[in-house]
Amino acid sequence: MAGNSFGNLFRVTTFGESHGRAIGGVLDGCPAGISLDTNLIQKDLDRRKPGQSAIVTQRKEPDTVEIYSGIFEGKTTGTPIGFAIHNTNQKSKDYGHIKDSYRPSHADYVYDQKYGFRDYRGGGRSSARETASRVVAGAIAKQFLKGIEIHAFVSQVGNLKLEKSYLELDLNAAEDNMVRCPDQEMASKMEDYIKAIKKDGDTIGGVITCVAKNVPVGLGEPVFDKLHAELGKAMLSINAVKGFEYGSGFEGVTMKGSEHNDPFNADGSTKTNHSGGVQGGISNGMDIYFNVAFKPVATVIQGYETIDKEGNKVVTQGKGRHDPCVVPRAVPIVEAMTALVLADYTLLSRTNKI
Amino acid sequence: MAGNSFGNLFRVTTFGESHGRAIGGVLDGCPAGISLDTNLIQKDLDRRKPGQSAIVTQRKEPDTVEIYSGIFEGKTTGTPIGFAIHNTNQKSKDYGHIKDSYRPSHADYVYDQKYGFRDYRGGGRSSARETASRVVAGAIAKQFLKGIEIHAFVSQVGNLKLEKSYLELDLNAAEDNMVRCPDQEMASKMEDYIKAIKKDGDTIGGVITCVAKNVPVGLGEPVFDKLHAELGKAMLSINAVKGFEYGSGFEGVTMKGSEHNDPFNADGSTKTNHSGGVQGGISNGMDIYFNVAFKPVATVIQGYETIDKEGNKVVTQGKGRHDPCVVPRAVPIVEAMTALVLADYTLLSRTNKI
Amino acid sequence: MAGNSFGNLFRVTTFGESHGRAIGGVLDGCPAGISLDTNLIQKDLDRRKPGQSAIVTQRKEPDTVEIYSGIFEGKTTGTPIGFAIHNTNQKSKDYGHIKDSYRPSHADYVYDQKYGFRDYRGGGRSSARETASRVVAGAIAKQFLKGIEIHAFVSQVGNLKLEKSYLELDLNAAEDNMVRCPDQEMASKMEDYIKAIKKDGDTIGGVITCVAKNVPVGLGEPVFDKLHAELGKAMLSINAVKGFEYGSGFEGVTMKGSEHNDPFNADGSTKTNHSGGVQGGISNGMDIYFNVAFKPVATVIQGYETIDKEGNKVVTQGKGRHDPCVVPRAVPIVEAMTALVLADYTLLSRTNKI
Amino acid sequence: MAGNSFGNLFRVTTFGESHGRAIGGVLDGCPAGISLDTNLIQKDLDRRKPGQSAIVTQRKEPDTVEIYSGIFEGKTTGTPIGFAIHNTNQKSKDYGHIKDSYRPSHADYVYDQKYGFRDYRGGGRSSARETASRVVAGAIAKQFLKGIEIHAFVSQVGNLKLEKSYLELDLNAAEDNMVRCPDQEMASKMEDYIKAIKKDGDTIGGVITCVAKNVPVGLGEPVFDKLHAELGKAMLSINAVKGFEYGSGFEGVTMKGSEHNDPFNADGSTKTNHSGGVQGGISNGMDIYFNVAFKPVATVIQGYETIDKEGNKVVTQGKGRHDPCVVPRAVPIVEAMTALVLADYTLLSRTNKI
Repeated sequence: MAGNSFGNLFRVTTFGESHGRAIGGVLDGCPAGISLDTNLIQKDLDRRKPGQSAIVTQRKEPDTVEIYSGIFEGKTTGTPIGFAIHNTNQKSKDYGHIKDSYRPSHADYVYDQKYGFRDYRGGGRSSARETASRVVAGAIAKQFLKGIEIHAFVSQVGNLKLEKSYLELDLNAAEDNMVRCPDQEMASKMEDYIKAIKKDGDTIGGVITCVAKNVPVGLGEPVFDKLHAELGKAMLSINAVKGFEYGSGFEGVTMKGSEHNDPFNADGSTKTNHSGGVQGGISNGMDIYFNVAFKPVATVIQGYETIDKEGNKVVTQGKGRHDPCVVPRAVPIVEAMTALVLADYTLLSRTNKI
Repeated sequence: MAGNSFGNLFRVTTFGESHGRAIGGVLDGCPAGISLDTNLIQKDLDRRKPGQSAIVTQRKEPDTVEIYSGIFEGKTTGTPIGFAIHNTNQKSKDYGHIKDSYRPSHADYVYDQKYGFRDYRGGGRSSARETASRVVAGAIAKQFLKGIEIHAFVSQVGNLKLEKSYLELDLNAAEDNMVRCPDQEMASKMEDYIKAIKKDGDTIGGVITCVAKNVPVGLGEPVFDKLHAELGKAMLSINAVKGFEYGSGFEGVTMKGSEHNDPFNADGSTKTNHSGGVQGGISNGMDIYFNVAFKPVATVIQGYETIDKEGNKVVTQGKGRHDPCVVPRAVPIVEAMTALVLADYTLLSRTNKI
Repeated sequence: MAGNSFGNLFRVTTFGESHGRAIGGVLDGCPAGISLDTNLIQKDLDRRKPGQSAIVTQRKEPDTVEIYSGIFEGKTTGTPIGFAIHNTNQKSKDYGHIKDSYRPSHADYVYDQKYGFRDYRGGGRSSARETASRVVAGAIAKQFLKGIEIHAFVSQVGNLKLEKSYLELDLNAAEDNMVRCPDQEMASKMEDYIKAIKKDGDTIGGVITCVAKNVPVGLGEPVFDKLHAELGKAMLSINAVKGFEYGSGFEGVTMKGSEHNDPFNADGSTKTNHSGGVQGGISNGMDIYFNVAFKPVATVIQGYETIDKEGNKVVTQGKGRHDPCVVPRAVPIVEAMTALVLADYTLLSRTNKI
Repeated sequence: MAGNSFGNLFRVTTFGESHGRAIGGVLDGCPAGISLDTNLIQKDLDRRKPGQSAIVTQRKEPDTVEIYSGIFEGKTTGTPIGFAIHNTNQKSKDYGHIKDSYRPSHADYVYDQKYGFRDYRGGGRSSARETASRVVAGAIAKQFLKGIEIHAFVSQVGNLKLEKSYLELDLNAAEDNMVRCPDQEMASKMEDYIKAIKKDGDTIGGVITCVAKNVPVGLGEPVFDKLHAELGKAMLSINAVKGFEYGSGFEGVTMKGSEHNDPFNADGSTKTNHSGGVQGGISNGMDIYFNVAFKPVATVIQGYETIDKEGNKVVTQGKGRHDPCVVPRAVPIVEAMTALVLADYTLLSRTNKI
């Protein structure tokens, strides 16, 4: 199957290269009757867009979405929602230097090998610019998922790790700072650190934590399409992601069963939540929470040595305008993918019983 | 989409409950012309089966696979391969105690909520017994993937963590001990630890590391069906898995771009491999390696308090014959799922160019 | 996608060759809670099975289905239903003559070309024996589709064509004769004709008409997955089918819009039903009816000349025990495929609105 | 699955309503390396567009396609091809009369029932305007299918039926007249007839025949995804189609096996071609040919009585600018869908053997 669609019943297909005419997509299977607030779509796009703060890339892209179909008199009609974001600020000449050489830890080399050639401008299809289309679809999914709250936030930048549980934090506070960390003190440290990294022409990795509250019991389709398996795939499909864990995650391996098991309350809720809101691949009504690891951005401004298409050594330097750390802008992307999974699985769950 | 199929072109669908008449599946899309050694299928089943050593469940199931179709005169025909493993050792009476109560951190509660009722015997469909079908399909995938080597092994049990890189180990040595850890000294410690845990009627988690060598450049279908995203989903779909990371993984977030980037050699290979053999979602010809985190088995033999269907408290105790630690038996399952992904993406990659 | 699955949410995957160990399949996505009468499954299998009357092949196959999973205490559990029919009466030696030669208008030649070789025994995977698995899945679908009635019957054999509308017939009467034509006088003529054809060692084509009553308004997923498009694919996937038309069909092309349009009654029903119960790809609540054209069975007992693998001429003769006319036994297959489509689209329709 | 995608590996998803901002789509899975002549896309769009001749609707829509992605330096890149056609000539006020009433044999009623409400302007999503997106994707598929020739033409209008076989005709001559019938004498009669029908404010049905030459042996994925089954679905998904038959079709049911079977030549080709180029669901290298039946357009300009949303009688009249007969403009749509199926199955066939 061509790899540019995500979801089964609530299904988005995206298109577009970093420096092509437009990026966009089609959201198919969105149920009819949602009163759609398009400002909320733009708001999420603005949380993702370049140039929004001092610690992100200074490219200026308005990222204004045009919706072509599927909405009538303010409501979704049940027909596919086509949309596009026209590219306006492509400085393609910034990328002449990568036309014939391969940037380390980028997708340049593998695209050339896989497809025979590539649109090298700004990374082409492999650019994270594509994720703007996901944010559009995710913002619509959020409006379908009334009552479910999805909060993503930055919980680690380099070695700066928020040790508090999400339960101790006011998750809405994440939007109060440019790092998107709900602990203002830690946010401030992270901000300083990212600025220092940027000054060095270097980059740094980070972790985004995401929490989904009020998810009903019963979402998830065992045995292969377990809810957390699809969430994991969704997150791993985001540029620069290297890892995913939910509930107790990698820490959980050091626990004993007698400690790890979540005892029930009389109403079916659990006293602890090492399960992370999912048991046997199906949501159990508790908070779903997970961590997503992002590697440092591959484009460093420092000079580096690499190879050209013929395998000759070339010395080059990162140009363009890049993010020193990807996580602040990736927060709405993590939320969008979460919303897409939950919307899809909400529809799937309608078919489980007679 | 019904959730019991995995893969696009090389696609397995499984069926079967722990204590039903049989488990099994259909492997559809397996190319014609593979000379199939059915002993290799049985060998992988034997690596997974209960009762194989002192540190796994003592249930005795022969797990003999019957292949019904798709093979003629020793070769795959390109038509679907149907297979079944008849259940022979179901002690259903062992499970009477869970008929009306919900075991903590099992799928009992969510199945009841999702489907209205459940086959409670031995966990029904949610039992890891289902993974035997995956092992069958995976063993066929391995034979399709000639030249590619897939090695999974146990790298952590509780806090006992193998700190060596897989490059320093003889991966074939993993089969020399019952834990399936290629470092014999560590294996011995892990074994002792699991025995102690078992004696306490408790369970413990662990990590499996998997390495795939000789994977050609070009496998992976961006942007959603990135190779590592599908591998992640495959792993997360295995019972008890809580996390997945590939290449530098969660550690990678603490690195700077200048350290993390993998410089090229003249032939397109890289000097380091923080990328874990995948860049931009596409294999780059380097070793693919990843970690899979397994929680402690939920069934503990110690007594515990839980609720029944009406929400009343009940005190119960784990019965049946269970694994104190799931990772030794999960090694062939991780390999099987890896093989299924690589087989599927090998077929997909045939369609990328004119 | 591997081609042995049908349906999206209510999805069957079949396996098995004519002379392999077993045929069977997996029905995935069947909702939980159906009280399943397995006698009804066997009853439909008996309507399809060989040897049931003087005008069908005299092979004797009991065609007893074994259900392996997905049913507990008489009810579907929402988990996949695995099933198999073991082959018991394979006279493989009957097919030695086709091992190295290609029967005209069979799939022998194309299977060899496509897959490199083939299981030649009894046509292997291309045998209509595979349709027994469809009948099993369809019989379960029928039980899910409570209230919807599906009646297929033979409306034409060779030039003997039932000119009456289905509205003038007692459709239940189709089972009163071995041809499965609800008009007993015509049935009698058809029967005599088939017997004569059989005596000549020849075969003849036919048409099956199918009517689905009480289908609710709203089934069908435009624009590609229109209800009648999926029904058409379902029918065309049955062995020997050459055409499909619904409602006014090919006759409708000669009508004017002013004649063909179906005027509304006040309740949304229509005064005429040239639309065949589907408008714009969506059921409108009126009877769905369609015709399915079957070619004459390719295996003729008369001698014929053909080629072997090297392209040499060989003279051969149809052996084995074959149907002189396929339509009497194909009636339950048409019903099964209709039920599978309606079950799938019933589930899909649950996702159209918020 | 949301119903607005077609194809597995070569997969188009369309969006757009008749009177929305734009229609368009995404073609995903198109292999890299096709040198794309965009004039050929526009040429096919022009064959479909309104206003092209005296016998089609006189709406004027330029139908100019904008391609947003997936093409670089004149070649496909293997990434998704996003495209849009902006709507420029929507006279929405023409449709005020159908806002609250249901036109007979249109999709108005069923859309309201299925989705709760509808974009009523010009039929919204159910308008044949959507097929322009198919023509774009199909024109790209044609360029991928080098060497395969696809010819569709009008073979019947009302009772005017071309009795000649396609083998007796110069199929390229179909474009020499406005009806698109390759027999100029018959074309002339059809043209006069359509003009007369139009004058009466009425409409008439027709048949399109399609021939695909030089299709290689081996396309088709039994048992459900037989080549002709997918072609049938593709055709039945086109607006106003009521039937599909291939090869001998409905005529074939009156033939005996001894007449119908296609004897082999020494090279595997056949002396006759009742099979229509497909045996057992797989192409056999002979010409593929099939007929597609179109009903008369439902919009008649004559006055008619119908109901409103409350079931009250209303008398209304077809307004807008409509086609008296749909087949002349549907010829490129039939070709486009044929090309899409063949492109998809060409890719699928690359995976059949090791």
